[in-house]
Amino acid sequence: MAPNLDPYFKQVDALADTFIERLRAAVAIPSVSASDENRKDVFRMGDFLADELTRLGAEVEKRPLGKQPGKEHLELPPVVIARYGNDKKKRTILVYGHYDVQPALMEDGWATKPFDLTVDEKGRMFGRGSTDDKGPVLGWINAIEAHQKAGVEFPVNLLCCFEGMEEYGSEGLDDFINAEAKKYFKDADAVCISDNYWLGTEKPCLTYGLRGCNYYSVEIKGPAQDLHSGVFGGSAQEPMTDLMHVLSKLVDQKGQILIPGLNELVAPVTEDEKKLYPNISYTMDNLYESIGSKTSIFETKDETLMARWRFPSLSVHGVEGAFSQPGAKTVIPAKVIGKFSIRTVPNMESNEVNELVYKHVKDVFNKLGSKNSMNVYCQHDGKWWVASPFHWNFQAASKAVKQVFGVEPDMTREGGSIPVTITFEQATGKNVLLLPMGSSTDGAHSINEKLDRRNYIEGTKLLGAYLHYVAEEPMNEKK
Amino acid sequence: MAPNLDPYFKQVDALADTFIERLRAAVAIPSVSASDENRKDVFRMGDFLADELTRLGAEVEKRPLGKQPGKEHLELPPVVIARYGNDKKKRTILVYGHYDVQPALMEDGWATKPFDLTVDEKGRMFGRGSTDDKGPVLGWINAIEAHQKAGVEFPVNLLCCFEGMEEYGSEGLDDFINAEAKKYFKDADAVCISDNYWLGTEKPCLTYGLRGCNYYSVEIKGPAQDLHSGVFGGSAQEPMTDLMHVLSKLVDQKGQILIPGLNELVAPVTEDEKKLYPNISYTMDNLYESIGSKTSIFETKDETLMARWRFPSLSVHGVEGAFSQPGAKTVIPAKVIGKFSIRTVPNMESNEVNELVYKHVKDVFNKLGSKNSMNVYCQHDGKWWVASPFHWNFQAASKAVKQVFGVEPDMTREGGSIPVTITFEQATGKNVLLLPMGSSTDGAHSINEKLDRRNYIEGTKLLGAYLHYVAEEPMNEKK
Repeated sequence: MAPNLDPYFKQVDALADTFIERLRAAVAIPSVSASDENRKDVFRMGDFLADELTRLGAEVEKRPLGKQPGKEHLELPPVVIARYGNDKKKRTILVYGHYDVQPALMEDGWATKPFDLTVDEKGRMFGRGSTDDKGPVLGWINAIEAHQKAGVEFPVNLLCCFEGMEEYGSEGLDDFINAEAKKYFKDADAVCISDNYWLGTEKPCLTYGLRGCNYYSVEIKGPAQDLHSGVFGGSAQEPMTDLMHVLSKLVDQKGQILIPGLNELVAPVTEDEKKLYPNISYTMDNLYESIGSKTSIFETKDETLMARWRFPSLSVHGVEGAFSQPGAKTVIPAKVIGKFSIRTVPNMESNEVNELVYKHVKDVFNKLGSKNSMNVYCQHDGKWWVASPFHWNFQAASKAVKQVFGVEPDMTREGGSIPVTITFEQATGKNVLLLPMGSSTDGAHSINEKLDRRNYIEGTKLLGAYLHYVAEEPMNEKK
Repeated sequence: MAPNLDPYFKQVDALADTFIERLRAAVAIPSVSASDENRKDVFRMGDFLADELTRLGAEVEKRPLGKQPGKEHLELPPVVIARYGNDKKKRTILVYGHYDVQPALMEDGWATKPFDLTVDEKGRMFGRGSTDDKGPVLGWINAIEAHQKAGVEFPVNLLCCFEGMEEYGSEGLDDFINAEAKKYFKDADAVCISDNYWLGTEKPCLTYGLRGCNYYSVEIKGPAQDLHSGVFGGSAQEPMTDLMHVLSKLVDQKGQILIPGLNELVAPVTEDEKKLYPNISYTMDNLYESIGSKTSIFETKDETLMARWRFPSLSVHGVEGAFSQPGAKTVIPAKVIGKFSIRTVPNMESNEVNELVYKHVKDVFNKLGSKNSMNVYCQHDGKWWVASPFHWNFQAASKAVKQVFGVEPDMTREGGSIPVTITFEQATGKNVLLLPMGSSTDGAHSINEKLDRRNYIEGTKLLGAYLHYVAEEPMNEKK
């Protein structure tokens, strides 16, 4: 039965200006985690959140994470954790967000002051952190406030986990989550993360999958130092010659990965899964717009989305050690390192992928008959993640989208990774839902980052509605 | 008939310390042409040469070259030109050198102060510019002085052309040489340039050939801006994928250029030419030592030297626009520019080479069936040069080497280019000889640049002896 959410929704509308002022106050704090000088502002932003939550009656703690590795003069900003409600009869939802932001300078090309929230006539609210991730974090706080002022009982117990280092590698967070999974977070029945984006600009989405990433280096060396191509060209074997041959044997123009055995690791597409794609509101024109050209691999939406979400891809990123500047330099580089990565999907296990990559690269190199030496290794790997979109956590969110926006949400995956997702899933063993607030045009990490007023206000309604449906949803433990 | 050079040689030995002090004074002037702050020192070094030549009775002019293109606040250093002797019955030899030097800082790793000539117990004279090219330039001045003090008539008329921008692209020099070829330089019967190096450390060489260089860019672009490989990997065609394929189809591990038709442009090796190689004092160990590894393409000296001097080679230098830093970045570069160059030899005409390169690269790219766009162009080209080692200019130098060093010189080419060589040849229409003073271990452009005392003092004898043989040599106008 659909909960009666009208009083809550009306209250959100009534408080809209207050919520925008709250966002303005948050954006005004330049909590840039990458900058030493702004570290105090990151702390200030943590205090801001803690104060807001405390004022609304949550129990709040600021948990220190120690010194920053490699920058021992800097204290890591705390994880702000909070509990709002402690009713054993209610479900408990753990929500994650981050309160630090990317750097932003006027000289990068911002049209408005990046730390001064500026709302234009279309309701676009420009400011660093507006969509990534201060808007969504404040969404939870707004939802609590609107419930209180509307006199509507909060439907669940809420656990908050807000970190201050997300834009700088989430230093220390994994250990913290693992340590608290069976302590502070032990009551969580499910997890909700609002830190990604709609596929387009009109229709919300629920995200149930992320690709993993295995990043490789192929190092080829010969001479002891860089050589002059005039003096040694023709007499010395050149590492770049070898590297170009190796890097040309990894993937073709159709995106097909040429590493034997790799594609066989990919889980077959199921019939249920296929049915999710035709309804997704995405067009080839959306793709062309976002890449700024028509240089797509596929001609249809379904193939494109599948290639991006549920099939692996291989990208060659560049070469370290070779000439990379404008102009001309007649160097024979002595040691070059090719960089490429594979986006992984179910059921590609990292170790198996590594073995296949190493074997293939070695085979290709050995066939060259070069006297240079070669080494290939994985710089880092991050696992893919996929949740069941049929779990009650997703069903609740889906019903909330329908009530607030009047449409079925797009069921999406993302091609990139959000490592904290898998950390929460593994640490808590619970279903994790990605429930984005912002739209595809928000420009997180870019100049002129914005959050639309509609996304913020209706998004606040959505977060509250989601919690009400969560409270009603029958148990189905499909993960 | 061998000229009697004993009085001259003895005088050089007697003046050896004076000559070393002259080099010390020259090295002390940090005439770094690449540095704005040192421009005044470059002028000072020009004055130093002009004063020395004037004192010895030469007619000297300092010819201004105007403002430095792109750095209009800087005046280009003058070309110091001089005439010593004006006897119509004598041959006239035009000699070239440069008085500017590469930058040098203690923190680069110099063992001694770079602008403070430091002579060690082995007679190695360390200092920036000692071998490149102040030692050789002073060699001509020393030769004049020793003739005067020995009371030996100078055997030729000498024309000097000493420039101050060689280490920074010889700005303005080509125009100057072309303008003066039929004016100031009109009497020149031959040209001698002392600005390269022996093949080894024991035996002088005469250099009769240089390879040319055609430098190419292959530009491939698709998306309007760099993309995230997580979000777009698998759905967008990647310019790097295309570029790696193109760059892998240019040359193989044996140094064979894979561009159809290119090798057919190369002049066949003649029997006369073949005979020059076995006598050259060079070993595979020399090669291994200079590249710091055993990663050679060939196993024999003759093949190695031919591959380096008289056959073309192709080197891939790097990629602009891709990720080139240490670490990992998951970028799909939107536009990448591959850089490669071909060292050219007789009879490869630049235009023909360009046509073959363009056609091949386009064919390879078109076969890929990529939607990205590709453009290939020649950034710059420089022609190869080869003179006849049987011309009287070379014969004279060869006899002088035999008299001073007691050995036949190595007849060498170089794999790299010295553009002024071809400028002089084309402008004057006369034979050009490269007669190096320094040895292969001098480290021009490196830290701890040095010139051996033996090379400087015996080299001064050689320059004088060469002029005497030039005066005696019968006319044979084989260029």
